[in-house]
Amino acid sequence: METVARVADYIARTGILAPGGRVVVGVSGGTDSLCLLDCLHRLGYSLVLAHLDHRIRPESGEEAESCLRAAQTYAIPAEIGVEDVRAFAEGGYSLEEAGRLLRYRFLARTAKKHGCHVIATGHTADDQAETILMHFLRGSGPDGLRGMLPSARLDDWVGIPEGAGVTLVRPLLGLQREQTLAHCLENGLEPIQDPSNEDQAFFRNRLRQSLLPELETYNPGIRDVLLRTGQVMAAIAEHQEEEVDDAWPEVVEHVGERALRLRMAFLRELPQAIQRALMRRAIWSLKPLLRDVGFEQVARALHFLHGRDSGRRQALVGDLELLRMGEDVLLWAPGSEVSFSDWPQLHSRKQVMLEVPGKVDLAMGWQIVASRTTVSPDGLKGLVEKAGKSRVFLDGELLKGKLHVRGIKAGDRIRPLGMKGRMKVADLYVNEGIPQPVREKWPLVMHRRQIVWVAGLRMAEAARLTEESRKVVELRLVGVEGEAR
Amino acid sequence: METVARVADYIARTGILAPGGRVVVGVSGGTDSLCLLDCLHRLGYSLVLAHLDHRIRPESGEEAESCLRAAQTYAIPAEIGVEDVRAFAEGGYSLEEAGRLLRYRFLARTAKKHGCHVIATGHTADDQAETILMHFLRGSGPDGLRGMLPSARLDDWVGIPEGAGVTLVRPLLGLQREQTLAHCLENGLEPIQDPSNEDQAFFRNRLRQSLLPELETYNPGIRDVLLRTGQVMAAIAEHQEEEVDDAWPEVVEHVGERALRLRMAFLRELPQAIQRALMRRAIWSLKPLLRDVGFEQVARALHFLHGRDSGRRQALVGDLELLRMGEDVLLWAPGSEVSFSDWPQLHSRKQVMLEVPGKVDLAMGWQIVASRTTVSPDGLKGLVEKAGKSRVFLDGELLKGKLHVRGIKAGDRIRPLGMKGRMKVADLYVNEGIPQPVREKWPLVMHRRQIVWVAGLRMAEAARLTEESRKVVELRLVGVEGEAR
Repeated sequence: METVARVADYIARTGILAPGGRVVVGVSGGTDSLCLLDCLHRLGYSLVLAHLDHRIRPESGEEAESCLRAAQTYAIPAEIGVEDVRAFAEGGYSLEEAGRLLRYRFLARTAKKHGCHVIATGHTADDQAETILMHFLRGSGPDGLRGMLPSARLDDWVGIPEGAGVTLVRPLLGLQREQTLAHCLENGLEPIQDPSNEDQAFFRNRLRQSLLPELETYNPGIRDVLLRTGQVMAAIAEHQEEEVDDAWPEVVEHVGERALRLRMAFLRELPQAIQRALMRRAIWSLKPLLRDVGFEQVARALHFLHGRDSGRRQALVGDLELLRMGEDVLLWAPGSEVSFSDWPQLHSRKQVMLEVPGKVDLAMGWQIVASRTTVSPDGLKGLVEKAGKSRVFLDGELLKGKLHVRGIKAGDRIRPLGMKGRMKVADLYVNEGIPQPVREKWPLVMHRRQIVWVAGLRMAEAARLTEESRKVVELRLVGVEGEAR
Repeated sequence: METVARVADYIARTGILAPGGRVVVGVSGGTDSLCLLDCLHRLGYSLVLAHLDHRIRPESGEEAESCLRAAQTYAIPAEIGVEDVRAFAEGGYSLEEAGRLLRYRFLARTAKKHGCHVIATGHTADDQAETILMHFLRGSGPDGLRGMLPSARLDDWVGIPEGAGVTLVRPLLGLQREQTLAHCLENGLEPIQDPSNEDQAFFRNRLRQSLLPELETYNPGIRDVLLRTGQVMAAIAEHQEEEVDDAWPEVVEHVGERALRLRMAFLRELPQAIQRALMRRAIWSLKPLLRDVGFEQVARALHFLHGRDSGRRQALVGDLELLRMGEDVLLWAPGSEVSFSDWPQLHSRKQVMLEVPGKVDLAMGWQIVASRTTVSPDGLKGLVEKAGKSRVFLDGELLKGKLHVRGIKAGDRIRPLGMKGRMKVADLYVNEGIPQPVREKWPLVMHRRQIVWVAGLRMAEAARLTEESRKVVELRLVGVEGEAR
């Protein structure tokens, strides 16, 4: 019974399960999961047994049978699922990964079916040590080196859409494998032997059966060392997460479903370790189908962010790229919707009418406001003084027809005020340092087929006031915080 | 020459060497150190070759010869030292550790002899990967997992008293071993083969020759992974050090050469990872002859600090212990000198005279101040109201002789004001929660052989004012910030 008390203690210490709650237990039929089932049963939880038949080995049917018998013993409901893991693996996963994905999807579905929010698995301290070693060998920061968490929400697990609202707990992380075995022996439980646990073709099995014993010749206490390393790294990861929480609002602006703007002035101030952790989260948060954000990607990102790479853009991972945007950097899936609070952007590229007087609403609270006045010869100079990038005065005699606002079209040109020749609007954007993602929906004010104002940047020479101008059209670009730029 | 450029780049990037400076180069005669010597020579540094003959192998004399020839080639001074490493190791070190200690002591001595502040060693990226793996196997936080630093001050290295003011740099950490070999081949350098590099009895050699190739079957890129892990951990360690710097003044009070007081109210507020890093530094800072502060010790310390252990004291490591002191905890070598700013402490236990009027100076700016007044029958009540723990009024008729102040002696007793029986002063301290380390020098005010006041705590019944008292002796315990407690 000592084992049950230990499990109870672990649950109490970590707070992963409310007393007497309803729990779906993932049972393979092996030692660890049978021990888990038995302990949780004795501790008074209301259980549902869930077993997935992986169809990898011929014996798998018998294993399902054995799980059904176990459920009968405890008089609890059982759900047996069947998945062709081998077939699923052909979609680009290793057998181990495919099994893991399908298993958790099945557990999550079972939880939903039984109105349950918690699933429990029988991972032990030995599994934990192996996991930590595995992450070390593959290369990982504190996030991976901490190993498995006592409790984790499945919500964000990639490839497990059924996981929303389901929490995975691991009540046996404080037990050693030999303790679960002893518990089974003492209590007459009859675990099945899973031969795939012996198959050295599986990375984890090789680790367990060959590498760990080898490492014990270097340090007999290697398993404890791994677990302790996990604890140290867990504390570090937790601390980093808090610091990223603190820094996030200042550094990161969500400018689209799949686009983040990174404010370099703030990012640069963070310690390197936190920059790294923040970048990991930034990449994660865009949820490409990443199974892991590697050191490599984060290192490449930071290298680019700090301008050690002179390029304008940098492919990162999946469909994500980094794009320099003036002082800042955009992390985005190129072409996805973006809107920036500090750049004027049309809702769409299509043409909309601008009445005079009247206004056009842009994205993020921006507006273009038009009005009409008359001016005396003496007043002309005053107008010129009031004019600026975001406020222009155009010849009203000329602009008798309607005004429109639209985004750029191929071949758009303008002769900017005071300049001799015409230039491509696309080139004007480049010269003015307008970031690529905002060029497409940058508002152009049109009169007939002429661009009279590239809002906030340049007006057309053709629409300028002359000594004779009496009628004036005033255009203003207004940002959320008043007149812009 | 590519190798030289790489070394130059590494030096520039890390800023570990000033251009053209004077450097003692530790040369074994092997590939790495010959490459280092050659590169630094080509880069224009002013070099001194230093070679320690370890006397472990019969060939060691020839190695020294070969180093002398190398020095002649470059026309630089050479220092050959001889140490009996095997004999030194019998003092409780492994051969590897003994060799390392004697080598650095010799290098430091050589540096001093040549008026030089920098020594350089030929550690490569391969050595770095091995070091990181070694720390991982032995169990380590970011501090160890970051591996060797490009530059480190020898000042604090335990067991190397000659290291004060000497900096160790490692300019080849960015090079792979095969690059140093290629450099030697290309430049006609003739490294000697050190057969001890092959000896699998040495932990590091086994790691290099047996474990790393084995790990490559799990991940062919394991060396890169180790180096990257080192970089991630270096950033974390650096960040933690900054945070410990910030927290240190609030949490830690130096109360003696070998004693720190840890203010739990502040410590408790820190993230666990920082508590851990702070404790490591606290233990380090007391400089017991520790070669490493292990996870075990830090974990035990935190366990005790958070009162999960109900004990009053906890042996920690070496002669250090933790001792509960009211809210706070003392980390100290028991019996070493301590003085606390918030407890009154005599400079020594010995008796000193207290003139009336007059005062006795205590440690850390505390004082006991004595004065004499007279009082009318009506004034008595006023005095009683003014009295407190740190201010007492005694019968001046009684205290005609001299007063003295001293620390506790075995068997000291007092009948406290208002109590019936006499009690041991030692018990009084316990009852009042006075921490053990400050009891010995707690000031007791004596009249003849009687204790009349345990300063700041209790006065003696015998010295109380009566209705008839007219002459009064007033005693005050004054702290740095005025009247205490």
